[in-house]
Amino acid sequence: MGNDGPGVTELAVNECWALLRSVDVGRLAVIVDDHPDIFPLNYAVDHGTLVFRSAQGTKVSAALSDAPVALEVDGYIARSHEAWSVVIKGRAEGIREIGELMDTVDLPLFPWQAGPKNLFLRLVPSAVTGRRFPVADQAAWQNPLSNVRRSPSE
Amino acid sequence: MGNDGPGVTELAVNECWALLRSVDVGRLAVIVDDHPDIFPLNYAVDHGTLVFRSAQGTKVSAALSDAPVALEVDGYIARSHEAWSVVIKGRAEGIREIGELMDTVDLPLFPWQAGPKNLFLRLVPSAVTGRRFPVADQAAWQNPLSNVRRSPSE
Repeated sequence: MGNDGPGVTELAVNECWALLRSVDVGRLAVIVDDHPDIFPLNYAVDHGTLVFRSAQGTKVSAALSDAPVALEVDGYIARSHEAWSVVIKGRAEGIREIGELMDTVDLPLFPWQAGPKNLFLRLVPSAVTGRRFPVADQAAWQNPLSNVRRSPSE
Repeated sequence: MGNDGPGVTELAVNECWALLRSVDVGRLAVIVDDHPDIFPLNYAVDHGTLVFRSAQGTKVSAALSDAPVALEVDGYIARSHEAWSVVIKGRAEGIREIGELMDTVDLPLFPWQAGPKNLFLRLVPSAVTGRRFPVADQAAWQNPLSNVRRSPSE
C-alpha cells in the first residue's frame, strides 16, 4: 500500500471489490471516434468481473466491443469525511453464449435507462485500483444523484 | 430536441448549463496510454467553460494538456423518478496567464483531494449534451456519494 499525496490512501484490491459490491451505479469511460466519452450505468459484480447492459446498435455499443474501458465508482464516508474512488480497467466483451447469458440474467441488472438493452457486456479487469482521501467540502460529495437543486423541467 | 429511446428526453443546451451549475463534483474521462481513465473532481462553471485543478507532474496531468476530455455530471430528480446526465466534451487547456488565473482562483474551487493542486485547467466545450430518463430503481441512484454501505476501513 502506498499513497500519492497527503491524506491519500491506496486501497487493497479486496477493499476495492467490497466497495464495488456496495454500489450499483458507476460511470463507464470509453473511446468513441478518438475522443473519450462517459456515461452512467448500472452494473453487477459477477465472479471477479463486472456485467452490464447496453442498447444494441448504438455507436457506444459498437465502440464497446472488445474495447479498452474504465469503470469508476465512488462514494462518501460520512464518519471519516473521506471520499473513495475505485477504477476498474479492462476490456468489454460481449456475452454471446446462452449458458453464460442465463447465468448473467439472474443478476439484479435493471436497465439504467428505459429502452431496449439487449446486449450484455462483461468487463474483465486488467487493473483494479482504489483510493480514499479527505474532502474539503463534504456537501459537494453528497449532491450528485441525491439532491438536484434545479430540475431540467423548471 | 429528439430522443434516443422510450422515455429518454434530450436536454436543451441551456438546461445542461443550469444542471452543470447546480453540482460541484463530476467525473472526468481522459485517455492515458491509449486507455480511457476516469476520476472524480470538483469543478466550477466560468463563462461558458469549466475550470478545475489537477496535481502537477502526474501522468494524468500530462495527459490532460490540450487533450480531448469528457466531463460527466449526473443527478436524480426525486419528484419525477428520473435521472439526468450531462456530458461536456472538449479540450483541457492549462491556465497560464496571471490575469486569467486571478479570475479563476476566485471561483469556489476546493481540491477534490488533499495534496498540491497547482495546475488549473480549463475545459473549453466543443459539445454539450444532456438527457434525462426514467430509472427503474431509484435507490441505486441515491447510493453513490451519499450512502456507503461498507467503508474501506471496516
